[in-house]
Amino acid sequence: MTANTKQIHPVILSGGSGTRLWPLSRKLSPKQLLALTGPSSLLHETAKRMHGAAFAKPVIICNRDHRFLIAEQMREVGIAAASIVLEPVGRNTAAAAAVASLIVAKSDPEGLVLLAPSDHVVRDLEAFERAVAGASVASHAGEIVTFGITPNAPETGYGYVQRGAPLSGAPGTFHVARFVEKPDRKTAEAYIASGDYSWNSGMFLFSAATMLREMERLQPAILDACRKAIAAGSQDADFLRLGEKEFAASPSISLDYAVMEHTPHAAIVPVDMGWSDVGSWSSLWEIAGKDDAGNLLAGDVISIDSTNSYLRSDGPLLAAIGVEDLVVIATGDAILVAPRDRSQDVKKVVDELERKGRSEHINPAKKN
Amino acid sequence: MTANTKQIHPVILSGGSGTRLWPLSRKLSPKQLLALTGPSSLLHETAKRMHGAAFAKPVIICNRDHRFLIAEQMREVGIAAASIVLEPVGRNTAAAAAVASLIVAKSDPEGLVLLAPSDHVVRDLEAFERAVAGASVASHAGEIVTFGITPNAPETGYGYVQRGAPLSGAPGTFHVARFVEKPDRKTAEAYIASGDYSWNSGMFLFSAATMLREMERLQPAILDACRKAIAAGSQDADFLRLGEKEFAASPSISLDYAVMEHTPHAAIVPVDMGWSDVGSWSSLWEIAGKDDAGNLLAGDVISIDSTNSYLRSDGPLLAAIGVEDLVVIATGDAILVAPRDRSQDVKKVVDELERKGRSEHINPAKKN
Repeated sequence: MTANTKQIHPVILSGGSGTRLWPLSRKLSPKQLLALTGPSSLLHETAKRMHGAAFAKPVIICNRDHRFLIAEQMREVGIAAASIVLEPVGRNTAAAAAVASLIVAKSDPEGLVLLAPSDHVVRDLEAFERAVAGASVASHAGEIVTFGITPNAPETGYGYVQRGAPLSGAPGTFHVARFVEKPDRKTAEAYIASGDYSWNSGMFLFSAATMLREMERLQPAILDACRKAIAAGSQDADFLRLGEKEFAASPSISLDYAVMEHTPHAAIVPVDMGWSDVGSWSSLWEIAGKDDAGNLLAGDVISIDSTNSYLRSDGPLLAAIGVEDLVVIATGDAILVAPRDRSQDVKKVVDELERKGRSEHINPAKKN
Repeated sequence: MTANTKQIHPVILSGGSGTRLWPLSRKLSPKQLLALTGPSSLLHETAKRMHGAAFAKPVIICNRDHRFLIAEQMREVGIAAASIVLEPVGRNTAAAAAVASLIVAKSDPEGLVLLAPSDHVVRDLEAFERAVAGASVASHAGEIVTFGITPNAPETGYGYVQRGAPLSGAPGTFHVARFVEKPDRKTAEAYIASGDYSWNSGMFLFSAATMLREMERLQPAILDACRKAIAAGSQDADFLRLGEKEFAASPSISLDYAVMEHTPHAAIVPVDMGWSDVGSWSSLWEIAGKDDAGNLLAGDVISIDSTNSYLRSDGPLLAAIGVEDLVVIATGDAILVAPRDRSQDVKKVVDELERKGRSEHINPAKKN
């Protein structure tokens, strides 16, 4: 056992090419690469959050099309990756977890893997660190630990996890009673009232050995495809390219569906850490600091008599007069205007752009 | 007397450099030069409205800084100007009326002058032509006729003109009882209820001789300054440049204040001709054709579930979701967002730009 085995291996999932934050996020400029909450990108923040004495060098698993953007951002943040793994096609989180476990197991078979999306916000870093430290006890003992976010509202856009009995010998960790799909409003309210439910954050801590054992048992096709994709892949100075044909053969399902809902080793650490998946402009407004009028202003903005609005320009001067509860996001080549509570419908705009064969949802936004 | 004396001499006032339609209108790209209501600019529409057998070649009186834009627009519309007169400084409409009368009187002393702003909309051209023909009777008889717009709402943003007794021998023409300043709402409602009041359109018909006589009597300083400005001016192939020092010496007041409120020869032709002074984005929305949802869309706009809104882009793609009663005007370098009923407050933005020493209210809008 080397010194390294006591460190946790961060595996940052950067496969998304979401457009929920259009017009800023684009297929070729995804959310995690954007500086949405300050001067650093979400990827920067994620990498910094899992950097330090407790952590080994991170593995990044990303969309092949984003490789230079990702590598450049890691260079900028000054954190050397153990590996930047390129997915030739997206195959969801179960395959990513398998690839991560296979890679970590090569050097550190019993090592812990902290699987984390690259595009979430965590504001309370101490709570995060305590949760990871707490979860590591159970993970070393063979549990696959999911981090459950303490809900502060009956959100219908998240899956929920119900906790069961406390796990003996692992304070703050519980057996998972069950995973549930996105509920309706009434059900979500009941979940919150019960106090047993957390939001499913998509963050996991497990040992490589445990994950590989459970994959072997529950999802042999995924594990087989990932093994072959690594074997057929190529490693150069910067990137580990997975074999395309082999990786494409993997079933494309989430780690929740593939493993967590079936394994007897599912555990949960509930945590309140100022988390957001930043799934819409509205959620970004909610987590941000705002001025006295409830406005979040970013970029070249003149606001007169506006309230409770998110006014942002990465392009032209944006002047707003007397607007309320509005989101306005401007770039050099596209502008979104919507009431805050309609901002999730930006996907309808993206669909329209796709139908029309346009490119404003694909290429990075022009500045001006 | 030449054949020309039976034609009316249009004098188009294009001195404004308003920014009430910012971010489209700018100091160096004023409202009258913009294609706001269709493919033609307001200046084009104004020139076409006063073109044909009844009219002599127009005189344009404009801000010196706009001379090439104006000349190019006249070239585009294919209407040769009798003269394009350049004001070195703005001296309001009384001085412009004096200059116009002096210029017309040179070739046609008894000729009628139709003084008209370049930046108003008139949708009912037949009503306009009937009103001008009707007014010419009184004008030939020595009256200065103002065109009074039949009010369709108790607007507080316009001056009003009260009509007096009918003018004998000039059907549809009345003596002016009085001019009144912009009223408060209650007063405006009383004006409308009385049926005696019209909006003051800023359009006038008079003979050059009458105006010069009344100016001589009521405003000798203005007339003197204008005479000297023409004498000291220079005429080249394209422009008549007024002498700067001489013209600057003229008092700067409106024709209403200078002459109309004092002369016994003030007459009015009330007319309902689909008129608007297009004083705000909201007024442009009001006069325009709209879709079934009450939206006016112009340029590269995607609208989803929007209602009663004016969504216009002369720059980036503009996507609006679920907005109501909103004005969004986008250009390549500036965007305005405001509820329709706040759109007149755009001057607050322009003031802010001025204070900050910026240029987005001065230079023409970038396309993209």
